Amino acid sequence: MQVSRFYKYSAREAADRASHRASLRGDNKRALTFLIWKWSGRSVSWISCSVPRGAACTLLRNPSSTPLNVNFFIASGASTGADPLSEGRSRRPRLHHSRASAADREPAWNDEKEEEDFDFEKQLFIISPEAKFKVDRWEREEGGGGITCVLQDGRVFEKAGVNISVVSGVLPPQAVQQMRTRGKKLESAELPFFAAGVSAVIHPRNPMVPTIHFNYRYFEVKDKNGVQWWFGGGTDLTPYYLNEEDAKHFHGTLKQACDEHDPSYYAKFKKWCDDYFSIPHRGERRGVGGIFFDDVDYPSQEKAFNFVTSCAEAVIPSYIPLVKKHKDAAYGYYERQWQLLRRGRYVEFNLIYDRGTKFGLYTPNARYESILMSLPLNAKWEYMHTPKPDSPEEKLMKVLKEPKDWVPLFAEAKC
Amino acid sequence: MQVSRFYKYSAREAADRASHRASLRGDNKRALTFLIWKWSGRSVSWISCSVPRGAACTLLRNPSSTPLNVNFFIASGASTGADPLSEGRSRRPRLHHSRASAADREPAWNDEKEEEDFDFEKQLFIISPEAKFKVDRWEREEGGGGITCVLQDGRVFEKAGVNISVVSGVLPPQAVQQMRTRGKKLESAELPFFAAGVSAVIHPRNPMVPTIHFNYRYFEVKDKNGVQWWFGGGTDLTPYYLNEEDAKHFHGTLKQACDEHDPSYYAKFKKWCDDYFSIPHRGERRGVGGIFFDDVDYPSQEKAFNFVTSCAEAVIPSYIPLVKKHKDAAYGYYERQWQLLRRGRYVEFNLIYDRGTKFGLYTPNARYESILMSLPLNAKWEYMHTPKPDSPEEKLMKVLKEPKDWVPLFAEAKC
Repeated sequence: MQVSRFYKYSAREAADRASHRASLRGDNKRALTFLIWKWSGRSVSWISCSVPRGAACTLLRNPSSTPLNVNFFIASGASTGADPLSEGRSRRPRLHHSRASAADREPAWNDEKEEEDFDFEKQLFIISPEAKFKVDRWEREEGGGGITCVLQDGRVFEKAGVNISVVSGVLPPQAVQQMRTRGKKLESAELPFFAAGVSAVIHPRNPMVPTIHFNYRYFEVKDKNGVQWWFGGGTDLTPYYLNEEDAKHFHGTLKQACDEHDPSYYAKFKKWCDDYFSIPHRGERRGVGGIFFDDVDYPSQEKAFNFVTSCAEAVIPSYIPLVKKHKDAAYGYYERQWQLLRRGRYVEFNLIYDRGTKFGLYTPNARYESILMSLPLNAKWEYMHTPKPDSPEEKLMKVLKEPKDWVPLFAEAKC
Repeated sequence: MQVSRFYKYSAREAADRASHRASLRGDNKRALTFLIWKWSGRSVSWISCSVPRGAACTLLRNPSSTPLNVNFFIASGASTGADPLSEGRSRRPRLHHSRASAADREPAWNDEKEEEDFDFEKQLFIISPEAKFKVDRWEREEGGGGITCVLQDGRVFEKAGVNISVVSGVLPPQAVQQMRTRGKKLESAELPFFAAGVSAVIHPRNPMVPTIHFNYRYFEVKDKNGVQWWFGGGTDLTPYYLNEEDAKHFHGTLKQACDEHDPSYYAKFKKWCDDYFSIPHRGERRGVGGIFFDDVDYPSQEKAFNFVTSCAEAVIPSYIPLVKKHKDAAYGYYERQWQLLRRGRYVEFNLIYDRGTKFGLYTPNARYESILMSLPLNAKWEYMHTPKPDSPEEKLMKVLKEPKDWVPLFAEAKC
């Protein structure tokens, strides 16, 4: 795979340019694609995640420079304009491969003006005029930075956030301890690290549309024995009302992405997800799960990357059909109240148990607004709320208390 | 001090009876008084906290029995019916001393029928008919139990909870570690404990009325060197709009309670409170503070207990005047939204930093509904919300970022 025009920037410049691009596109007219690029020589592999409406950002990583051999690139031609909700038209390629020319080093700003970067035709998410993605670029004093995009009070999405961060520095002691608990051998006193990740949480307005969360990340730590790297991440679904077809579609899509790489992955990472997104004090899961993994450093860097790429590419097809199906479903006060109560549980999980949130908030000078963008706009806590027997609310609780297998665990025999 | 009629029960019976009393009084007609009693021979000292409307409970501790010399008593004559909001009449004594007779062991149930236990005359908190305190007694498999009372969706109080727990067992390892970090010398592998506490959180409906929280507790741990005991607790105020007179009244009342016992207490425990109720990732305090302390095992058990009693007795006079003053203040949508955002911060503190909540939730078989009753009915998270310059909201933020001294730190010279 080759990339078209790319431009080498510092983290600050990269964030700057992404922010500029975002502001040009802040007209609420299109879906944009978030990409994290990993570049090695002239070969580029990539993680891509579309979010409807927002800002485009591409971050490339060049393994041949600086402390941890890290540098940041922004590939200006990478945002696609493909609206994940547009129907009846062929999907445009995610990358402008046709415009590829590795030697092209014109300033990226010029690209902003190119007509083909824009596509205003389709917009299935009609959001009230005041609801826009707020796009913030930020830097971390210790190294790196990121872009946080949050939409609030939309018609379809009550709150949706996308966070991209590419940071480096020296691991804080708490993080080292946590990694060692997970079995990592880290044998120096000071451990430089590099981390690149993309995450998003979408809390829809309609209680019949589930919340989705995904996060994919790449990590490098250097100790006296060299650099260790691994991928982590996952995608999980949090419905307010259980629709079994939705759960099957969601899990089926993720399973397909996993199966392409290893037939054992889905079962393993599905269980990991059920175990991770658990609220122990309530004896329930946050939602119907999905996949979750960490420390994936096998079978090779290239193959691990391809696997994570497949997972990230599965986000849109796993979720957007559910949004389309239910976004105009009828609901009333009662369903809204239940949704708010479940969002309270979401807050409980994120603030009490989520490793990323805890790690983030305990890190000095963390950008807490980016970490907490995952919290819903509204949440509710009622004392001793118990769903009525045989109600749709109780039906959901049953699968939250005892996770189900939504798709056959092993792929059909190919013979 | 002598107590009137008291009855010796197991924790379960005590909870049962309190619950029964509560249900009899669940007619929303009166304010009741929560009491934790500490009984030693025929001398009784006590912690008392009134909450408007609810259930009565008295728990006495008899130091002459069972594993940790602990037993529970319920003194049926202890609920007062004194309405903390009633004006223009002399305060009735908290205890029916006139009815005292240590030998009287008639079943407490009879008391429910005694006229003087009821006082329907005054009710300044008019709550919508459907808003009642829900009263739950609960037991802990490992030993002890408690009573949780929660009111939701009232006219004056959006959510108010009172929790009483009297538990014993063996300290979980996390708790031991935490106590050792605080400097406790605990020299056995297995550490039996006894803990009795009362806590309450009141989230009013009107954004001009602050939220109050208090908690007073008594702790005993037995190691090979004997029994160690200490008191802890505090009272703190969380306004949504800063009213300096309120803050001065609140702190002044707490200071007065402290000054009676030691002129250095208020300054010390005020600072402790500012330090404890802090949300480090935001660089702000939860509210305007109050007092907070732990490990108070000086100058003597009796004196420490008297100090804590004074603190608990100061809760009502420190807070109820503020409720009366502001409960009908005008407010609109904007003020409500700000209140909800601040309640989001309250949730952040409680779920991420509060030692009691964390300790509770990590304890196996903890009654999470009682622990989480402190959470507001509704909360909100907006990304990057910033109050307008020179707005009332910004005025509050200033004192949350830099705590103030609300009353002169040292009592007037008495000479």
